[in-house]
Amino acid sequence: MRPSGSAPRPFRPLITLLTDFGARDPYVAAMKGVILAVNPEAELVDLSHEVPPQDIAAGAFFLAAAVPYFPPGTIHLAVVDPGVGTARRGLAAKAGGHFLVGPDNGLFHLVFREASALTVVSLENPAYFRPEVSPTFHGRDIFAPVAAHLSLGVPLPELGPPLREPVRLPFPEPVFSDTRVEGQIVAVDRFGNLVSNIPWEALKHWLTGRPFRLHLGSLVLTNLSRTYADAAPGEALALVGSHGYLEIACNQASAAGSLGLGVGAAVTIRCD
Amino acid sequence: MRPSGSAPRPFRPLITLLTDFGARDPYVAAMKGVILAVNPEAELVDLSHEVPPQDIAAGAFFLAAAVPYFPPGTIHLAVVDPGVGTARRGLAAKAGGHFLVGPDNGLFHLVFREASALTVVSLENPAYFRPEVSPTFHGRDIFAPVAAHLSLGVPLPELGPPLREPVRLPFPEPVFSDTRVEGQIVAVDRFGNLVSNIPWEALKHWLTGRPFRLHLGSLVLTNLSRTYADAAPGEALALVGSHGYLEIACNQASAAGSLGLGVGAAVTIRCD
Amino acid sequence: MRPSGSAPRPFRPLITLLTDFGARDPYVAAMKGVILAVNPEAELVDLSHEVPPQDIAAGAFFLAAAVPYFPPGTIHLAVVDPGVGTARRGLAAKAGGHFLVGPDNGLFHLVFREASALTVVSLENPAYFRPEVSPTFHGRDIFAPVAAHLSLGVPLPELGPPLREPVRLPFPEPVFSDTRVEGQIVAVDRFGNLVSNIPWEALKHWLTGRPFRLHLGSLVLTNLSRTYADAAPGEALALVGSHGYLEIACNQASAAGSLGLGVGAAVTIRCD
Repeated sequence: MRPSGSAPRPFRPLITLLTDFGARDPYVAAMKGVILAVNPEAELVDLSHEVPPQDIAAGAFFLAAAVPYFPPGTIHLAVVDPGVGTARRGLAAKAGGHFLVGPDNGLFHLVFREASALTVVSLENPAYFRPEVSPTFHGRDIFAPVAAHLSLGVPLPELGPPLREPVRLPFPEPVFSDTRVEGQIVAVDRFGNLVSNIPWEALKHWLTGRPFRLHLGSLVLTNLSRTYADAAPGEALALVGSHGYLEIACNQASAAGSLGLGVGAAVTIRCD
Repeated sequence: MRPSGSAPRPFRPLITLLTDFGARDPYVAAMKGVILAVNPEAELVDLSHEVPPQDIAAGAFFLAAAVPYFPPGTIHLAVVDPGVGTARRGLAAKAGGHFLVGPDNGLFHLVFREASALTVVSLENPAYFRPEVSPTFHGRDIFAPVAAHLSLGVPLPELGPPLREPVRLPFPEPVFSDTRVEGQIVAVDRFGNLVSNIPWEALKHWLTGRPFRLHLGSLVLTNLSRTYADAAPGEALALVGSHGYLEIACNQASAAGSLGLGVGAAVTIRCD
Repeated sequence: MRPSGSAPRPFRPLITLLTDFGARDPYVAAMKGVILAVNPEAELVDLSHEVPPQDIAAGAFFLAAAVPYFPPGTIHLAVVDPGVGTARRGLAAKAGGHFLVGPDNGLFHLVFREASALTVVSLENPAYFRPEVSPTFHGRDIFAPVAAHLSLGVPLPELGPPLREPVRLPFPEPVFSDTRVEGQIVAVDRFGNLVSNIPWEALKHWLTGRPFRLHLGSLVLTNLSRTYADAAPGEALALVGSHGYLEIACNQASAAGSLGLGVGAAVTIRCD
């Protein structure tokens, strides 16, 4: 049951879908139709279609938080694609047992960073595209049929030549010094929880039980909690979030709302 | 085709998902991955992920309105869990042929209340959890893998000891006297229809064709309609909603919006 | 891979769902339960449940944009049904290889218009309904079980007599004259792209390379772009949208928002 672990190879071909297309428009539906027309046995699993429009970094964060839990062999089709129709390439990849299909614009960079083994190809073989490719909708005309053909067993090298340098996005790494850790908020979830880029394991090793002060905006905290309910309702607390990063939350309330903070806010931990 | 009826046992293991996690965050996706890593044959069916955040009563109402229609043997995984990581227990249950998995916080109380037979166990066997359990995300680390193991045929008693008194929430029961029925609005749907807690069968029996006045805020109605279109566009009417309860609606408009009312508003029916 | 083309008959019975019920209420969940209770082998695929409430024309546009991509034999269950419980009929149809089930209120008129062959029946055989039919929820009590029975192989004529004149909605056709094309915006997508009713093929044939001016509100454009990124960020452009119609968009911004325009706005192209 560990991410990327030894789970059995799925019997059915699983294809997950992540997009910024929203639920109101017919774009996701068209992609599903195209996949099922190529492989009627494909099993479709919606991850989300509510990635903020054209926010590649948010899509990358989502994939990094979800892909590792799926069984090896799962095909993840992801489309957040502001550069559709330009020279940006399309890719298919195998990263640590997971297949990925979508634009080469950084959407997969966090998944690639974590992968033990990585093969990436540039989608250049139109035999696996729809016969007519709209310059505004590669999700339907390139990525969906490619994912479907992968689920039929088409090998990666069939799809195109190796893509040696897939696009990587800057990701803010936390800075650890003797007396300070400087991090920042990288995601805000539906509950208003503020997820930082400070990995819990590294922080625990750095703290070694010393007293500390955590600063986030006007908030100062001097201890870590185990779970949301460790603070009084409405009060802020810091804990290890489920992504494995330091998270600032309010019990039964929105930390983002009550602190007036969001992505990019600085988190500093001082031991001095 | 009757709820809880004699439909055939599903050949495929069906697991439904209901949460308050929303579509934007990767929480639901991670749960789906965990389920499919344990049982790649599981068939996932989204009920909703838009339960209002941390609103256990709304989740309970949703489950009561949806679960009875599924075939016996379906596994319903539901997570609305403000007390995650506290002493609140997790449960798995068999209620009238349906399996249920989630927190023991009242989320299932309406389903349990209707069940002809009920077995509930406390989730205490970590062999069926993920190896590391985050104190903030039991949905992914406990409930998802337990549901997946149930779908593989693991019997309930394997999961933990009997849980004899699952948490029940107060549910406002309508009060019937000789000349009055006192009820209240318990749900507002997307169309602004106001769903009351007054069961149509009981009301019909009480009315026995007598003239009546229904009071809801400033609204007074003196007859019951059969369907939304029985009133002029924009006008209010009372009818038997699809849940089997008295409902106040406006034809092609929002009753909640035009009356300025919501959950908790008093509905009184007088025969005098 | 062409829409409505020669894709193989699906092995599994596919049923897609399109409604205006939203994700928050239990209506879609109840429909899914009813389908699976009748045919536990049915494969459910969500198209969308976010059609604007009671907007039949928007549902019709969605279906026309999505249905053609699915493999022949797919059953499309669609419910946008403001007239539920009135004299409006229910229908099941086979249109160009696709099965359709829902209210006879125009929801399928665009799919019907494109179909090479069309058979429509009026749903009058209660043997395929739920035993009790709520006058407010035919989606659950009539359309869902009918779709499920279709997926079990029940032939269309079993469901009711032929329905010779299904309801058609007015659809604004563009007007082509010697020097002008008069069209209008018929849809706005999540990205704020403005989709017109002017088919690209017809426009291309009409333009034959002549210089032109496109007028939409205060906007004037004199050339066509290939993709969104052909304009500077924030700037408006016209292109062939993925539906095959002329579309007005802004690169990385909302054309609807920046122009202050929506469905119904006039689009004029002049060559003089």
